[in-house]
Amino acid sequence: MSSIDPRDVPLNNSAVIGLVSELSNWGRWGADDQRGTLNHIDDECRRRAATLVREGVVISCAWPLGGHGFHSPGSGPQRFMIRSGEGLFEEHSVPPIQPELAGRARLAAEYIGLRFHGLEITHIDALSHVFWDGRAYNDVPAASVSTESGATQLDVTHAGGIVTRGVLLDIAAQRGVEYLEPGTRVMPEDLEAAEERQGIRVGKGDAVLLRTGHGRRCQSLGFVDSGQADARSGWHVSCLRWLHERDVALIGNDGTNDAVPFEFSEMPLPVHTIGIVAMGLWLIDNCNLEDLAEICDRMNRYEFLFTLAPLLLVGATGSPANPLATF
Amino acid sequence: MSSIDPRDVPLNNSAVIGLVSELSNWGRWGADDQRGTLNHIDDECRRRAATLVREGVVISCAWPLGGHGFHSPGSGPQRFMIRSGEGLFEEHSVPPIQPELAGRARLAAEYIGLRFHGLEITHIDALSHVFWDGRAYNDVPAASVSTESGATQLDVTHAGGIVTRGVLLDIAAQRGVEYLEPGTRVMPEDLEAAEERQGIRVGKGDAVLLRTGHGRRCQSLGFVDSGQADARSGWHVSCLRWLHERDVALIGNDGTNDAVPFEFSEMPLPVHTIGIVAMGLWLIDNCNLEDLAEICDRMNRYEFLFTLAPLLLVGATGSPANPLATF
Amino acid sequence: MSSIDPRDVPLNNSAVIGLVSELSNWGRWGADDQRGTLNHIDDECRRRAATLVREGVVISCAWPLGGHGFHSPGSGPQRFMIRSGEGLFEEHSVPPIQPELAGRARLAAEYIGLRFHGLEITHIDALSHVFWDGRAYNDVPAASVSTESGATQLDVTHAGGIVTRGVLLDIAAQRGVEYLEPGTRVMPEDLEAAEERQGIRVGKGDAVLLRTGHGRRCQSLGFVDSGQADARSGWHVSCLRWLHERDVALIGNDGTNDAVPFEFSEMPLPVHTIGIVAMGLWLIDNCNLEDLAEICDRMNRYEFLFTLAPLLLVGATGSPANPLATF
Amino acid sequence: MSSIDPRDVPLNNSAVIGLVSELSNWGRWGADDQRGTLNHIDDECRRRAATLVREGVVISCAWPLGGHGFHSPGSGPQRFMIRSGEGLFEEHSVPPIQPELAGRARLAAEYIGLRFHGLEITHIDALSHVFWDGRAYNDVPAASVSTESGATQLDVTHAGGIVTRGVLLDIAAQRGVEYLEPGTRVMPEDLEAAEERQGIRVGKGDAVLLRTGHGRRCQSLGFVDSGQADARSGWHVSCLRWLHERDVALIGNDGTNDAVPFEFSEMPLPVHTIGIVAMGLWLIDNCNLEDLAEICDRMNRYEFLFTLAPLLLVGATGSPANPLATF
Repeated sequence: MSSIDPRDVPLNNSAVIGLVSELSNWGRWGADDQRGTLNHIDDECRRRAATLVREGVVISCAWPLGGHGFHSPGSGPQRFMIRSGEGLFEEHSVPPIQPELAGRARLAAEYIGLRFHGLEITHIDALSHVFWDGRAYNDVPAASVSTESGATQLDVTHAGGIVTRGVLLDIAAQRGVEYLEPGTRVMPEDLEAAEERQGIRVGKGDAVLLRTGHGRRCQSLGFVDSGQADARSGWHVSCLRWLHERDVALIGNDGTNDAVPFEFSEMPLPVHTIGIVAMGLWLIDNCNLEDLAEICDRMNRYEFLFTLAPLLLVGATGSPANPLATF
Repeated sequence: MSSIDPRDVPLNNSAVIGLVSELSNWGRWGADDQRGTLNHIDDECRRRAATLVREGVVISCAWPLGGHGFHSPGSGPQRFMIRSGEGLFEEHSVPPIQPELAGRARLAAEYIGLRFHGLEITHIDALSHVFWDGRAYNDVPAASVSTESGATQLDVTHAGGIVTRGVLLDIAAQRGVEYLEPGTRVMPEDLEAAEERQGIRVGKGDAVLLRTGHGRRCQSLGFVDSGQADARSGWHVSCLRWLHERDVALIGNDGTNDAVPFEFSEMPLPVHTIGIVAMGLWLIDNCNLEDLAEICDRMNRYEFLFTLAPLLLVGATGSPANPLATF
Repeated sequence: MSSIDPRDVPLNNSAVIGLVSELSNWGRWGADDQRGTLNHIDDECRRRAATLVREGVVISCAWPLGGHGFHSPGSGPQRFMIRSGEGLFEEHSVPPIQPELAGRARLAAEYIGLRFHGLEITHIDALSHVFWDGRAYNDVPAASVSTESGATQLDVTHAGGIVTRGVLLDIAAQRGVEYLEPGTRVMPEDLEAAEERQGIRVGKGDAVLLRTGHGRRCQSLGFVDSGQADARSGWHVSCLRWLHERDVALIGNDGTNDAVPFEFSEMPLPVHTIGIVAMGLWLIDNCNLEDLAEICDRMNRYEFLFTLAPLLLVGATGSPANPLATF
Repeated sequence: MSSIDPRDVPLNNSAVIGLVSELSNWGRWGADDQRGTLNHIDDECRRRAATLVREGVVISCAWPLGGHGFHSPGSGPQRFMIRSGEGLFEEHSVPPIQPELAGRARLAAEYIGLRFHGLEITHIDALSHVFWDGRAYNDVPAASVSTESGATQLDVTHAGGIVTRGVLLDIAAQRGVEYLEPGTRVMPEDLEAAEERQGIRVGKGDAVLLRTGHGRRCQSLGFVDSGQADARSGWHVSCLRWLHERDVALIGNDGTNDAVPFEFSEMPLPVHTIGIVAMGLWLIDNCNLEDLAEICDRMNRYEFLFTLAPLLLVGATGSPANPLATF
């Protein structure tokens, strides 16, 4: 796709903006495509991914939602009980609205609500989440995401169910640190150093999970929800060329994929912007990679069956998610 | 586990209530167990399930959430855009609250809210969802599910990620009808007839999906949200003995597992009540089994890799879900 | 203000659109005015209104919110208890999150949510609720009402607290019917006939409440939430000239002020559009005028102290309200 | 009602608990009464209150809801636009769901949600808000406030519309300070000193607003939402005897009526507990008394027409409110 060696080109604001066209996948899978890089996953990817299940062990890559740990209250979720298990048979109790449930059997149920594109919620970004110059992936107009109707194109339902090979690239382990300093940008050479250390090569259709140790840092230091001011490590934008050349299907990270503070004033979130808008790359933010890293180390194996089943929220620009790694 | 032949015992109200103790798994996996029948899934289950991925095809067993099709507005979800793609660069536009997003790149994001234990939402019930005589599974007091704190025990996070063999039992196909008449109760002999027709035997750790055609009926006739008055087909309670003997890990259905209208006045929802409270059986309500049935027919294969990754909602009595079947 | 006799001009689409400029109050109270016709209420209006309190009787002009009567579930409100009074001291109860409330004293509290611009909710429309040709009242650009920040101009807080003379014009009583046929448009001559029958004259700063009997009809026939298709009676657009000449401060109605079905295809809601956008007229939709009409009849007095105190919702295009009439 | 001189009795935990019976109004207005001290307001109260409108000036006693000032995000409200004014006519715009609004006229509307019993939200507490020993006012069982159905008794709708004389007691002004030190408890003698300074006497049916300057302090120092740990001044519990003897109908305060930190470990919120449960006294928390104090000072008049019209939320334990003072 590109003959430029990414290591030779220092990136500035205008070079970064140039990546929008350089890495574009617009039209690659048809004018009406709404799946972007998920098209890299073919039946062969899924078949080979399943062969990676050898021990029969499954690991969740999501953080608990709404727990008291390092989750801030700002992003929710809200959980409101419609009916709890309190006082079921006490004197003066109000009978359930459904009369058939007024006997010895009772139900508890709740409403949940959340703004899932939050800093501490494991979620996937659909291709309608980001615009550049008023356009989303594949030249879809930004206005197609309306306040009243949501994302009338490129919503998260187009992901369906994702089954492919997952690869962990553990940069913190590769550098021998507990976590990268917040603000650190992981470079393509870091990815290749991790590949070499781990004896693996990222390829077509892979889900690549980048571990910087940000989650461990939050676990040990506590999490302060300080918005975009809160420094996080992540991919350097130049990694997008590398991911593009490797035909990667989706990426995840224990931060928000983009490092903070921002490097380029004219494009504060280049991984989100170029990844989602130009490449049609699906991103998973705020993964829990701690258990995954531990088992990878123990088994000395960094590839696994990766599954992600977003909620099929019609019109949504993403979904909270619980990505699974099965070994 | 039980030497009674379920075909020989006519069930009445008191016999059904007797199943609460007969089928009890309380204490079976320890006094503190919160996973119930998911304990049937061991590493070997997951390993063998992965070998069922031969074609590399993945099917979602969830209905779209919030679409206009046969989803009623009553159960939601609510989708409120925080920022859409409308009017990004028009004159007089209000700048984004995050100043770094006021340039050429813009984001859309939303709040979603839902009462997922609804009639048309594909969801999994956690073991805190139902009580009998003030107790949940494993003798947990109902009061442990509080209005303020939610399910302090038995919440949905205990499911983690579910990976096992899935088996479709297509009763509508077995009977040669498009769908069972609403209100029909599927009997153990139906399950065995389907096993025979399909050349498969349900066993330990399986996720068993029961297709009555209710989903197809809704698709063709339209869905009217008429609450519990709306007739649906489902498992007869006597199937729980069968599922118990086979050491099934979880069950799903294209209705709400329990048939409506109710058979036993003293226990209106016996599959939910005995299944969840006594057995610790996880239930998936309102599955979309239409695409699954079609591919099973085409491939003449009714077993597959089943994965279900609930949102890790702390304190929740279940989760909306997108169960996947991979062939 | 206008020398045209409204009775002489048959209104068609273009004549109605002409009212946008004919009745415009843009600039009348300054280029930055955000209060529109509420400017008609001066201290003298409030002083004289208070003198109407003679019996010391107060009447609410709001419907209950969220009751089971003729309120449809579609518009809410949602009420979710955060903590209820159930099971406070039962065995195994989960202690309150605030430890100081774990003793003999306990609190109940809830979350409420609603889409108040609904068909059955008594609410006031702020001047940011409607646009014509991309402009709100006083030439404010529509884009000033943004998805993320709400109404950055013309929000409901500009109403502050409304205290003035209220006048009931009971058209149903004037015509001697229980309710006007749905779809009926009340004409200026009806207003004047009611004035004559009631011995009152509407004037500067008044809050004029128009009773068509729609509320009584809903009470007796039940309410079906069929959206805009549901016929309702209301003001004919030509009444706006009359209200404009009389310097009325705000209007209310037991329907939604505009009659349904619509009369003019190019401006379906002319009372809302010309009233709010051109005149800066505040509207109260879905008032409960049944108790009010009864007491007016009994006392043979159709003027009273009117108070309306909207919630001071920053950025909101209106507020649910409980308007009071004191005699 | 009581011949004890409150100044003579030092209050300890058990003496405070004794006030529950001493100040009880249970049964006073009938076994089914749900209005408590609002029964003190009779027609004569409303008539005389209206005569206090002399200047014709109206003042809101509410803080803006959801503004950026000293409102913390924790208590909301949430405001989600259903349709905003952005991009109404731009290319590719998604048409409104209501087709008749796709022309030159457009609407903006929103959903609002809030937990109104918050620290910074002006709201009224209904008599179902607090329990003591499992009982609410008038011996209503706490269990009558259920998670599913809300307050089936004593909900906020029983307030209807409140119209009576309002009296400001400005303790900060009386002591010559900008605000009382957080944690200060106002004593009955402070009330009487304020009465004397202001030349007024609190009486039957009054709405008494107690100004400690807490609002001004928040305005000048900023507000930090630190929950119950955040010190606030308020009424000393012994004032309840004074309010009881005077037949006061409702009270309000620029804090949360109860002072923080708590004085009595066994009854942390005695003003709420004894006031609401025993007396049936309606409380308004978090009033904005700054504008009111300024106009009272300027006019040298501390009585006015007081109106409060809660939302008629069926089943709610209170309501956000915008109390008005008219002079």
